[in-house]
Amino acid sequence: MVARCSAVASIRRRRKGSRGTWYAGRRGRDTRRADRGSVGGSAAAGQWVVVSAEPPKYYRVRTELERMVSALDEGEAVPPERALAEQFSVARETVRQALQDLLVEGRLERRGRRTVVSAPKLVQPLSLRSYTEGAKEHGRVPGRILVTFDDMVGDDLMCDALGIPAGSSVMHLERVLLADGVRLGLESTYLAHSRFGTLAATFDPQTSLYAAIRAEGVAFASAEERIETALPSPREADLLETTTLMPMLLLRRRSLDAEGVPIEVVRSLYRGDRVAFQAVLHH
Amino acid sequence: MVARCSAVASIRRRRKGSRGTWYAGRRGRDTRRADRGSVGGSAAAGQWVVVSAEPPKYYRVRTELERMVSALDEGEAVPPERALAEQFSVARETVRQALQDLLVEGRLERRGRRTVVSAPKLVQPLSLRSYTEGAKEHGRVPGRILVTFDDMVGDDLMCDALGIPAGSSVMHLERVLLADGVRLGLESTYLAHSRFGTLAATFDPQTSLYAAIRAEGVAFASAEERIETALPSPREADLLETTTLMPMLLLRRRSLDAEGVPIEVVRSLYRGDRVAFQAVLHH
Repeated sequence: MVARCSAVASIRRRRKGSRGTWYAGRRGRDTRRADRGSVGGSAAAGQWVVVSAEPPKYYRVRTELERMVSALDEGEAVPPERALAEQFSVARETVRQALQDLLVEGRLERRGRRTVVSAPKLVQPLSLRSYTEGAKEHGRVPGRILVTFDDMVGDDLMCDALGIPAGSSVMHLERVLLADGVRLGLESTYLAHSRFGTLAATFDPQTSLYAAIRAEGVAFASAEERIETALPSPREADLLETTTLMPMLLLRRRSLDAEGVPIEVVRSLYRGDRVAFQAVLHH
Repeated sequence: MVARCSAVASIRRRRKGSRGTWYAGRRGRDTRRADRGSVGGSAAAGQWVVVSAEPPKYYRVRTELERMVSALDEGEAVPPERALAEQFSVARETVRQALQDLLVEGRLERRGRRTVVSAPKLVQPLSLRSYTEGAKEHGRVPGRILVTFDDMVGDDLMCDALGIPAGSSVMHLERVLLADGVRLGLESTYLAHSRFGTLAATFDPQTSLYAAIRAEGVAFASAEERIETALPSPREADLLETTTLMPMLLLRRRSLDAEGVPIEVVRSLYRGDRVAFQAVLHH
């Protein structure tokens, strides 16, 4: 089936606040035609239908707020809820819902009782380099807060992933990751005690673990990563100074050395409003 | 500063439903000690504090539900809200909150009036291969629903990203992506009309765009990708048969050919409860 290519011209101006990325995204096109047909349905132009001619009220407010935010500088506040409700002639609950959207997406953040325009998200490269190197590359000062540094008996899955016998001792290092003093993520690293036990006595948890592992003569050669959304547990939300409703980027990683022997298993939870991942792919 | 390594043994059994990944994740450790000190604070063991000894009620129910889900097979239903509220001696609202968590994370899904155990997430490789190839590799049948296929006047950012003069004509192809008939994502691809205009007449939007582009003699050599969380607009939520509260994985991609000339700009929104990304990194 060949679809006709109709000439619907749409000119949009570059917004202030678009942050100069190579593509700033599109929102608010709720009145565009769209096919809601079933999987096997025909998509010929004549059968396209309008999904929703009238977006919900909160979304109209969100669109207005986005325009307002685009005209403000980082750190500048939007008016209080009550004033916005009056300005847009909607209930405060409607304003709250629109603000919540922009808080979750990291366009706005709470600062005391004010709601201000956020700094751009930290862009974390998906690479074999450490968190430290990635943050520094983006001009941020990396930091860490130690939460847990202990031994545990690994379960079957963990020991299998680390390539050690079931029931082996596993070191667990858990740290809050910061950039410029702001809490971005919570990282748990698991290492075979038999291989890295000496780190227990020598490693300074305020510093880069990757640097310490490399200093042991171990080289990172490859890693498998899996990225998905998740909600934080109450404990994780506390440690990241957010709520259990904030969508997170959950990253799981297993790193291998040049011989294919596992080095580490990592589970990192990043605040979705503060972090984006970046990858460069080659053929 | 060197932290002491204390021997806190914790043995966990492998769960049914862990899906055999190399690491199935950890939840519900809300009573572990944790340092809530400030950035510069000391992390010596003696100063660690307990964040929250008593997790909120909904989280206790969530933990119970997870145990229940682990014992069920894909497609099996959990008991209705009212029965769960009785069983756990909590309000129905508390049960609803716990269920919502597992729905957002894709452990459960609604099927009519029942709430059933979900299929595993589709794992989408971050690679230069097409969606079609990725889905097939995981044994799923890929499909697409055409939403938009038209021309527009590109804005400055878009034309710059595509390496064409400002105000040039840009082709926009928007499709719902399916696997085994289930809606997983909404993909918008933007192409320079001057380069790919012939596709308007020849391309079948039910098929792989990458295959069609390659058939034009263009080879994908590299791509920059950015991944973050986002909330869908009401229109996007409708097209993906979900709500505006469902966290999404937003993927932006720009692909280049071997000469470094841009081929496409893509904005894809994937349902966070149904899709995970996977990357393999090499040194």
